[in-house]
Amino acid sequence: MNRRGAIAALAVGTAAVAVLGTTVAADGSPGRGDTEREIEQALHDHHPRNVILLIGDGMGTQEITAARYYQGVHNKLNVDRMPLTGFDTTWSVKPAPKAPYLPDYDPDSASTGTMWATGVKTLDERISQGPSSAINVPGRNYQSVMEKARKRGMKVGDVSTAELTDATPAVQGAHISLRGCQGPTDTAASCPQETKAAGGLGSIAEQEVDNHFDVLLGGGRARFEQTVTGGRDKGATVVDSARRQGYQYVTDANGLRGAKDDRPVLGLFNSGNMSLEWTGPTASTGKGNTPAACTENQRPANEPSLADMTSKAIRLLDNRKGFFLQVEGASIDKQDHATNACGQLGETVAFDRAIGVALDYQRTHPDTLVIATADHSHTSQIVSEDAGGTGLPTGYSTNVVTKDGQTLTLTYGTAGYGGPGAAPSANPPSQQHTGATVPLWGIGPGAAAILGTNDHTDLFHTLGG
Amino acid sequence: MNRRGAIAALAVGTAAVAVLGTTVAADGSPGRGDTEREIEQALHDHHPRNVILLIGDGMGTQEITAARYYQGVHNKLNVDRMPLTGFDTTWSVKPAPKAPYLPDYDPDSASTGTMWATGVKTLDERISQGPSSAINVPGRNYQSVMEKARKRGMKVGDVSTAELTDATPAVQGAHISLRGCQGPTDTAASCPQETKAAGGLGSIAEQEVDNHFDVLLGGGRARFEQTVTGGRDKGATVVDSARRQGYQYVTDANGLRGAKDDRPVLGLFNSGNMSLEWTGPTASTGKGNTPAACTENQRPANEPSLADMTSKAIRLLDNRKGFFLQVEGASIDKQDHATNACGQLGETVAFDRAIGVALDYQRTHPDTLVIATADHSHTSQIVSEDAGGTGLPTGYSTNVVTKDGQTLTLTYGTAGYGGPGAAPSANPPSQQHTGATVPLWGIGPGAAAILGTNDHTDLFHTLGG
Repeated sequence: MNRRGAIAALAVGTAAVAVLGTTVAADGSPGRGDTEREIEQALHDHHPRNVILLIGDGMGTQEITAARYYQGVHNKLNVDRMPLTGFDTTWSVKPAPKAPYLPDYDPDSASTGTMWATGVKTLDERISQGPSSAINVPGRNYQSVMEKARKRGMKVGDVSTAELTDATPAVQGAHISLRGCQGPTDTAASCPQETKAAGGLGSIAEQEVDNHFDVLLGGGRARFEQTVTGGRDKGATVVDSARRQGYQYVTDANGLRGAKDDRPVLGLFNSGNMSLEWTGPTASTGKGNTPAACTENQRPANEPSLADMTSKAIRLLDNRKGFFLQVEGASIDKQDHATNACGQLGETVAFDRAIGVALDYQRTHPDTLVIATADHSHTSQIVSEDAGGTGLPTGYSTNVVTKDGQTLTLTYGTAGYGGPGAAPSANPPSQQHTGATVPLWGIGPGAAAILGTNDHTDLFHTLGG
Repeated sequence: MNRRGAIAALAVGTAAVAVLGTTVAADGSPGRGDTEREIEQALHDHHPRNVILLIGDGMGTQEITAARYYQGVHNKLNVDRMPLTGFDTTWSVKPAPKAPYLPDYDPDSASTGTMWATGVKTLDERISQGPSSAINVPGRNYQSVMEKARKRGMKVGDVSTAELTDATPAVQGAHISLRGCQGPTDTAASCPQETKAAGGLGSIAEQEVDNHFDVLLGGGRARFEQTVTGGRDKGATVVDSARRQGYQYVTDANGLRGAKDDRPVLGLFNSGNMSLEWTGPTASTGKGNTPAACTENQRPANEPSLADMTSKAIRLLDNRKGFFLQVEGASIDKQDHATNACGQLGETVAFDRAIGVALDYQRTHPDTLVIATADHSHTSQIVSEDAGGTGLPTGYSTNVVTKDGQTLTLTYGTAGYGGPGAAPSANPPSQQHTGATVPLWGIGPGAAAILGTNDHTDLFHTLGG
């Protein structure tokens, strides 16, 4: 933990990326002694009072590195303030009449979220439900780590830049066979055995509200405006059901600022996914665009940032008995699917700012376990800016100018096959996830459990499941 | 470090990937207490007697995960026996008249090797020499960490499955402006200012021999059969020069077995790169081949395995004053370039076996620092076996049947552009490296320095530079 960074920086005048937690920094960040104490705590103290889990959806090593490089190679990210690091495997399983369920190496956000939420390997598209013989046959429901935390008296919160009913927030507050069953109408169409009318738990939106989680913040208002099909609130919208059950309901940044901690809060800031932070050039085949910087600060002011939602959630949840908060930066994944480099980069940077908010709290509340990771890896790759001819990638590339003034080339090529002998599809289709292990970062009691290569089901236990 | 693996495994009957070092295993591998002790040692003991650095060339997270999954999701790799994990950035720099040198986000094996060998950021293609105004203008030579170790009285060894004059082994024993200057003839053609005839240090082959490293094992015999252009051995081959300087010279596995530790050993087991361990189906555009298992055990018996070379090197180097050994699994990278999935997987598994040899020694010699990492990330990606139509990747895919009997689809698409509106090149050209951070694993005194995200130049200091 010694002799690094500063020495290397002297060698040629280009400073190495120094880990904030391992050098004595002029900005007041922890020095070597602090880092060793943090590691000791993470290793020997297994009882966090609070847990903050931050999920960068689709934020594999290529994605976090791209954001790191965009921000400048000599800058640190907030994620670097966490001293412990590791890898998780993310494979899901295929349908079968009974165990053993065989591995599927390229999972989705539903199965991967179910892993840390419940400790169980399940089918893609499934939300905190076990595997079964076929995707349309519901599996067994497993209690989520957040539901367990609430039972122990902790306050709980679920925050996302996606629809709140999207897979990653859903795994903490709902149990359903198909991730698409987000609102009551969706559920009647695709999960008929699980509607309230059929005696089931209802859609993801209904379950999230019925679960009485203390804080629910994100997009997806349209899902909550669908009509409940059974039970006490039959005929009302899910929003009305939430109000009837005591929720404060807010729909913009101002409303969120005014929310109080005496009642649960439902904040829905967009009818669909929340707006993107950055825009930029479109990907194209071959060499890609003339290098250009991303256009930042594109999010409408009436939508809170992920950092703002995280900060408010922590203030609403902070209490003597502890809390469990999950925060998702969802559109890293969505813009990776869309071959939108600047969209992806902006969401990654915004996610890192939310990590910073969590770590600022952790610094003054060291009995808080903070873990950041991705649910699964994704498609973008950092390639050479100098390639030409057949040395260029087969897919869709974008050239962005970084804060260091250099060209960062990202390519996306996991979807777009044009058919035998044909050029790639002119309009890039949704890119595939990829199967690599995901990075984890951690600090606080129990964080040493992330060291090495574990599986996303192990994370359930690390989080207190 | 508790409650994991075994508990998760019970949940659905599919065992989680348990980290060898963090569960009490029936096979005698370390339990939780052992792991905590290992972490404490890595954190507080900064003075290893021996250092073993293992480089999986091009072994980014996709590559190590692919090998992990090929071997079966419930199996552990040897690399998992190391309790500490982290990430390194790998960016190189561009030519400039003087510092600051600006970042190049997609480096090669020469610049990345120079980072850990010397602590200096340099240009791609450059071997333990600093940056300069242009690639054909030699930079300043920097002493390598292995040269420093030898000066402190340690024995030193350099092992690779590539030509011994390839970039990764070269960075420890040579200093030259261009990686291509491997033998004397190559150097006369491409690095005329650096030949012995011109008063320079000569080719990589000459410098490796003149450096009197105790153990040099790998391929590249043809480079060493080129004729020395100046100095005492002018007119002789580099092999003859090595013999004259006291080297034992061996050319096959039997010869290696007979080598003694009383004199340095030069082992050159192939005229070029050493033979591959596995073969398998060829990559193709679209869906790829009918899934097939790789064909293992293809290496000729007269060439030692990387594990055998590692084992012999340790026996030759082990001494009271300590040793520094670098071991490279080189053809992970080369077969990734070649879109050869089974070649790549076989080399990754062989590299992991060499890690196992190093860790077996470390277990009985805990004053040994062992670090495994990659020099840079690479192109292969694990994608869905179920994709079809335009959902298929734009590049070259191969479907292999894993030890779990399931289809693992690897795709390669960072080179092969067919031109505007054209299909990808029918014969895949060499694939590009990629720029993501690389994984690191470590055990032993000082290994805690790899935690977090550091830079490959920091690794120089961790290794004792």
